[in-house]
Amino acid sequence: MTKWVYSFGGSANEGGAGMRDLLGGKGANLAEMAAIGLPVPPGFTITTEVCTAFYDNGRAYPEDLRTQVAAALAGIEGALDLRFGDPAAPLLVSVRSGARVSMPGMMDTVLNLGLNDETVEGLAANSGDARFAWDSYRRFIQMYGSVVLGVSHHRFEDLIEETKRGAGVQDDTQLTDQDWRDVVVGYKEIVQRETGAPFPMDPHEQLWGAIGAVFGSWMNPRANTYRRLHDIPASWGTAVNVQAMVFGNMGQDCATGVCFTRDPSTGENVFYGEYLINAQGEDVVAGIRTPQPMSQQRAREGELSMERALPEAYAELLSVRDILERHYRDMQDIEFTVQNNRLYMLQTRTGKRTAAAALRIAIAMAEEGLISHEEAIRRVPPSSLDQLLHPTLDPDAPRTMLSRGLPASPGAAGGAIVFSAEEVEIRAARGEDVILVRIETSPEDVHGMHAARGVLTTRGGMTSHAAVVARGMGRVCVAGAGGIHVDYKAKTLSVGATVLKEGEWITLDGGTGEVFAGRVATIEPTLSGDFSTLMGWADSVRRMKIRANAETPDDAQTARHFGAEGIGLCRTEHMFFAPDRIGFVRQMIMAGDAATRVRAIDALLPFQRQDFQDLFRIMAGLPVTIRLLDPPLHEFLPHGEAELADVAAAMGESLEAVAARKAALSESNPMLGHRGCRLGLTYPELYAMQTRAIIEAAIAVSAETGQAVVPEIMIPLVGMESELRRTRTIVEQAATEALAASGTTLDYSIGTMIELPRAALTADRIAQQADFFSFGTNDLTQTTFGFSRDDVGTFLPFYLEHDLIPRDPFISIDQEGVGQLVSMGVEKGRSVKPGLKLGVCGEHGGDPASIGFFESVGLDYVSCSPFRVPIARLAAAQAALAARDAKAPAAKVR
Amino acid sequence: MTKWVYSFGGSANEGGAGMRDLLGGKGANLAEMAAIGLPVPPGFTITTEVCTAFYDNGRAYPEDLRTQVAAALAGIEGALDLRFGDPAAPLLVSVRSGARVSMPGMMDTVLNLGLNDETVEGLAANSGDARFAWDSYRRFIQMYGSVVLGVSHHRFEDLIEETKRGAGVQDDTQLTDQDWRDVVVGYKEIVQRETGAPFPMDPHEQLWGAIGAVFGSWMNPRANTYRRLHDIPASWGTAVNVQAMVFGNMGQDCATGVCFTRDPSTGENVFYGEYLINAQGEDVVAGIRTPQPMSQQRAREGELSMERALPEAYAELLSVRDILERHYRDMQDIEFTVQNNRLYMLQTRTGKRTAAAALRIAIAMAEEGLISHEEAIRRVPPSSLDQLLHPTLDPDAPRTMLSRGLPASPGAAGGAIVFSAEEVEIRAARGEDVILVRIETSPEDVHGMHAARGVLTTRGGMTSHAAVVARGMGRVCVAGAGGIHVDYKAKTLSVGATVLKEGEWITLDGGTGEVFAGRVATIEPTLSGDFSTLMGWADSVRRMKIRANAETPDDAQTARHFGAEGIGLCRTEHMFFAPDRIGFVRQMIMAGDAATRVRAIDALLPFQRQDFQDLFRIMAGLPVTIRLLDPPLHEFLPHGEAELADVAAAMGESLEAVAARKAALSESNPMLGHRGCRLGLTYPELYAMQTRAIIEAAIAVSAETGQAVVPEIMIPLVGMESELRRTRTIVEQAATEALAASGTTLDYSIGTMIELPRAALTADRIAQQADFFSFGTNDLTQTTFGFSRDDVGTFLPFYLEHDLIPRDPFISIDQEGVGQLVSMGVEKGRSVKPGLKLGVCGEHGGDPASIGFFESVGLDYVSCSPFRVPIARLAAAQAALAARDAKAPAAKVR
Repeated sequence: MTKWVYSFGGSANEGGAGMRDLLGGKGANLAEMAAIGLPVPPGFTITTEVCTAFYDNGRAYPEDLRTQVAAALAGIEGALDLRFGDPAAPLLVSVRSGARVSMPGMMDTVLNLGLNDETVEGLAANSGDARFAWDSYRRFIQMYGSVVLGVSHHRFEDLIEETKRGAGVQDDTQLTDQDWRDVVVGYKEIVQRETGAPFPMDPHEQLWGAIGAVFGSWMNPRANTYRRLHDIPASWGTAVNVQAMVFGNMGQDCATGVCFTRDPSTGENVFYGEYLINAQGEDVVAGIRTPQPMSQQRAREGELSMERALPEAYAELLSVRDILERHYRDMQDIEFTVQNNRLYMLQTRTGKRTAAAALRIAIAMAEEGLISHEEAIRRVPPSSLDQLLHPTLDPDAPRTMLSRGLPASPGAAGGAIVFSAEEVEIRAARGEDVILVRIETSPEDVHGMHAARGVLTTRGGMTSHAAVVARGMGRVCVAGAGGIHVDYKAKTLSVGATVLKEGEWITLDGGTGEVFAGRVATIEPTLSGDFSTLMGWADSVRRMKIRANAETPDDAQTARHFGAEGIGLCRTEHMFFAPDRIGFVRQMIMAGDAATRVRAIDALLPFQRQDFQDLFRIMAGLPVTIRLLDPPLHEFLPHGEAELADVAAAMGESLEAVAARKAALSESNPMLGHRGCRLGLTYPELYAMQTRAIIEAAIAVSAETGQAVVPEIMIPLVGMESELRRTRTIVEQAATEALAASGTTLDYSIGTMIELPRAALTADRIAQQADFFSFGTNDLTQTTFGFSRDDVGTFLPFYLEHDLIPRDPFISIDQEGVGQLVSMGVEKGRSVKPGLKLGVCGEHGGDPASIGFFESVGLDYVSCSPFRVPIARLAAAQAALAARDAKAPAAKVR
Repeated sequence: MTKWVYSFGGSANEGGAGMRDLLGGKGANLAEMAAIGLPVPPGFTITTEVCTAFYDNGRAYPEDLRTQVAAALAGIEGALDLRFGDPAAPLLVSVRSGARVSMPGMMDTVLNLGLNDETVEGLAANSGDARFAWDSYRRFIQMYGSVVLGVSHHRFEDLIEETKRGAGVQDDTQLTDQDWRDVVVGYKEIVQRETGAPFPMDPHEQLWGAIGAVFGSWMNPRANTYRRLHDIPASWGTAVNVQAMVFGNMGQDCATGVCFTRDPSTGENVFYGEYLINAQGEDVVAGIRTPQPMSQQRAREGELSMERALPEAYAELLSVRDILERHYRDMQDIEFTVQNNRLYMLQTRTGKRTAAAALRIAIAMAEEGLISHEEAIRRVPPSSLDQLLHPTLDPDAPRTMLSRGLPASPGAAGGAIVFSAEEVEIRAARGEDVILVRIETSPEDVHGMHAARGVLTTRGGMTSHAAVVARGMGRVCVAGAGGIHVDYKAKTLSVGATVLKEGEWITLDGGTGEVFAGRVATIEPTLSGDFSTLMGWADSVRRMKIRANAETPDDAQTARHFGAEGIGLCRTEHMFFAPDRIGFVRQMIMAGDAATRVRAIDALLPFQRQDFQDLFRIMAGLPVTIRLLDPPLHEFLPHGEAELADVAAAMGESLEAVAARKAALSESNPMLGHRGCRLGLTYPELYAMQTRAIIEAAIAVSAETGQAVVPEIMIPLVGMESELRRTRTIVEQAATEALAASGTTLDYSIGTMIELPRAALTADRIAQQADFFSFGTNDLTQTTFGFSRDDVGTFLPFYLEHDLIPRDPFISIDQEGVGQLVSMGVEKGRSVKPGLKLGVCGEHGGDPASIGFFESVGLDYVSCSPFRVPIARLAAAQAALAARDAKAPAAKVR
């Protein structure tokens, strides 16, 4: 018989942290906390396997589930001496989802389940607080009504507003038990009206309705979107946690709160969080009342800290915090409730954190001896480093402060004000910078938050949906900026008399919570000592070198600043667009005869030489891979009539002749056309000139600095050995001539991009002509899939939406297909040249998942954009550790 | 010590037909003829290995070559009792090239070598014919001067013309010995003037000069072009044959001729050829004098047959013909010389022939018991069948006869008159049909002949360059049409008063030699009984099925006529362009909303159903593979404003809206864009409609004919299993609905094109969703190479020209790269579904070399254009025989 239900707390404790896959994160950790002696209200977890079985069997439960649930429920009853549905001493429970990984706000929760017209009286009698009991009952109907029965929650909200108006009060807390009784009557009418059936009075019917809602919500569109964004397989399923209720809203000696064992924004080792007296947990997260700080030290004027309000419970919580950090060896995100001065733990999980906090915590915990250096390396998600590299506001920049909210997610960002996620996506797709401005955010807004530069909310705290999600995404966020009024209909944002319309700019400082009107200049971040420490540790374990893709001196400087160990891709065509060159480039292309072409190419030589000198000087002896001209020539063509006339005049040709040549150069599929080495072969003067510029520049800089420059000349778009053989001859001849003219010698190497399927398939032959390979995975992805990067927008979003493809293959390498060609290229290349230098210079070189793959196939280096170099350094270190683990799997302690 | 030189004839005979690779075709066969007792003047062959060594060592000979040549030369001297350079009894030799395969006209020949101012007197004395001796001497200087010394041959011609004018005669034969002595003096002056050195008098210097010229000519541009056109590797090299001269020009009992053992045009078993009395071999080939027929039976009025002129030698030749055919078991192309009534054999080789002749000879020899059926299958080059399928003139078509020449290569063709090969290429590249009109052709014209529809010459016989080359190429050729005057300068062709200018049309009948002014209607060929016989034999040995690519009833009829065993590719998009449909197609594409789109798609249904009914009816139970819509939608877009307005009106939308939609549909690289199954997935109604049309048509035709129709529905451009899985669901659902509506059942299968590298790389996963694979090698070639078929013209000619690629990979599959993916697709696909049906439907399905490859990887069928079906049937049979040989290599008798 399969065990579908695991009890925790109380007398039986059947789970533990190691059972996360089966019990979900929440269930596993509740059992773990109970096991280490922390106060956890008793309950049970219905396993994720039930969810899988549920969907596999057409939304039907396994046969013996009901028996097991009944037994576990009896266990809770026994532990607490309460009975489910007992009018005198009713057991109330919460029902919550709990997947393997935390999916904040994505799954639905029902509290106070078990209340009905009879048990509410028992609760009133036992608690001695009728108002509490009826408030709990209406909360239950409201939550169950919206989550399980699908009644729009504003119907319930409206009735409360009406009741408050009728009673002439402002705040929920001012409503009496009779008001709540009336609300309950109204709520039941709403349910009857909206669903055509009375609200269920049978607690068991309630329980199974809630369990069904949790499992049902696993496949709702919000959950599907979240999973897609976070690469979570649908097959994992969710568990359901049923737990005895404890009440933070039974009076002034009751409270509920959400805390982090360290500061999730900065990583500082201080107890950090918020609580509310006389409230249920959802009140803190929802942001309807403003939560208060935990410690007195952090309390501002007018705030009441938990330390002062509930000193005993606070002291116990401090001790729990230490136990949890020592036990889990990581920063925890915990939820607690204090009922009549007694502390209950309702959740612990690894806390989400900003990149800065992740870094700080990893380094600090390693220094505290809690974790090893290697564990610290593993702890920091490489892509999160992006956040540390984001700009902050320029302190000297003029600014007009508009308002202030909570500093919910660090960084600074400006953009056009936009009030809906849909509009964000539309504008972002057009390349606009936008700030999503909402009263509060909900899971429906996640896709818009992802596309925005930053998020501003007028309600909610540091643990509100907006704040948690924005931190996870690395988006700037200012939350709970209550001074700002948002009018969705008018599409305006106002602070007093100042009114900004949709489309006008604001700038957010996620580090201070400040909101500014208009654009405020930003500056590049300086990196903390922790960053250098982590990079140092990462560098000490990684095997692959990290290079940068860079053409300009600026890019090269940035690359070195971030620790690049050379340039893996210098795209010479980027040097051709400068205003002082493009004219000659166009003359070269449009030349009707060889003499004109050679003249134009010769005119480009000094420019190219200067470019390369600059690069070599900055890279000071580090390897520099220079790719000879790659794109189809018509990319450089004059666009308008006037530009065309300029070219014609410069060449002394008629406009007609030049226009005809332009037309002749246009291609049906330029990506597959006359480009790359095909240009170099048909216009050998071009590659000869570029080679000469490289060699002359290398000679000059070597002489100037006394440091040998070793250029790596790279031929693009090779598909056949013959192409590389012949191009190599052109390059070698030009290099030999340049060296002979200077009377010096110089080491240089000649290699090729592997960016066509045929190049990978015949890499053993191509390797005979190559000193190195650099996998051009952008182009390789295009031809392997037959996807044009420029046109893929017409169907790739559909593919992602419908799970036809797990992720955009231009962002993260398709290991199954494109990766197979890369592996083949590596194996075949090394089969004839064991020492062949291998790298990658596509966008994938900066993608952590792809870097893991490149480590596994044994590349020597990856090359990525300068800002991603630190990410690549860390990802390469993690990949090296993973490779080591894969080779010698050690007993792993979590 | 390497043996570089092999003697033949005389006392020593060291070679044989089996040594073709080493001795070249000519040398091997001279030795073979000598070995079987035929009269061959003694000589020796310098091996092809010397040629290879010559080029490998910077054009230097192996060390001991001179010693071996001297020894072999001494052997000839001994056999004939003549001495090289002996003024009294001089040995004269010919020096000829001889590669492994015949390269007509491409290599240079020198006759009468050994003559100088002294030996000419000895020749005069020994022959008793001073005129002959001096004529021979001047021929030698002329040939040696142009071939070895590079003097333009018109310089020599001019002097003869001048001499004839001075002597007041019309014909060379009317010149006296003194005239030739004067010509010799003049020739030597020409050589001195043109080369700055006297004509070499030393026979040994002459010999080594000629040998060097032969080897040198192996790498001349004409030879390189010929080799490229015929896939002959440069590494094969040529041999050099040095042979004692015999003279066909020593008097009226002397002659020289060129014959075929059977008619090379028709294959008829008659002795066929031409000879000239009192002439050297080159006179026949050059076409300067009009050759006479061999047999009296073939002599027309005023002609003198060899049978009558030289009856003894003729009888001997008839016997030689029989011996050769029995010995070589194939039709031979022979050269002979009669010197003073004695027959000498100078060459035998397998004769080139028309496709009709190849077929006739193969069948006849098999029926005569000379060769087996399988050998007959191997004997007919599949691509030559193309010629049998070429049109002939419609006998009822009106025509204006212009002139008549020799029926040099069969078929009928019309085209614009063009006078140079260059102009042919320019016009052919523009898609024009052209006829190359020349006085005579030379190897420089080969590329133009290739690009022309037909060739007309005004000089030369059935064995002239034009005739031989045109037959080999399958081009229509009328040769030696002496009634036509060609003026290259004026660019006119005239027959009496009728003058046609370049660009005006003529029509050739290569079967009769007739030339018509203007266009004459042609009709399709009917195939001979031999053709059916061969096809029957081929069908009995081949393993692969042959299908056709066809959409229209016409194509399908043609395909069946040629023996197609089904349709391998029905491109449904070809059905969309008809005027009654394109409007709906455009509405479908331009639809702003789903309802409009569905309406347009529904309107297309009856058309599609009708199309499929027609096909199923014609194919009568044979398999029909229907590919759902494949190309990017914008291929169907309206072009002009007026068409766009039509679409807008039909849809009730504004022109602007429709124009905007059109712009949105344009793609940067449509080949890699929104097409194939990407369309089917994003517009599922489209594939559903096509499926419904297929299923409904199949039901209807099954009911009508009582014969089960089994449609194969093919999904294009699949790169991922997920795409096929989901498309399969769309198709299955539509099929299920259509079947349910009709209340019947039907077998159908669903498969996919494998035409993207990723599909081949993941074929094991894709196979799980597929009932069959069809390799789309056109697209696969595009993406594997990164070559756009539409744009490749900008560099592929350069690649071919410069040997960067051996052949156009769109014509013959690139086995190394693209073929590797096909093999992978086969292996991976069958690894999960051993019975998976596998075919190919790219252009390569009709290419014999590619078919050989497809046999070797184990495809079940190839599908090609209807006209290539017979070629594919034969090629598949040859491939099956080759595969059998490869498995069990038997001792092969040549």
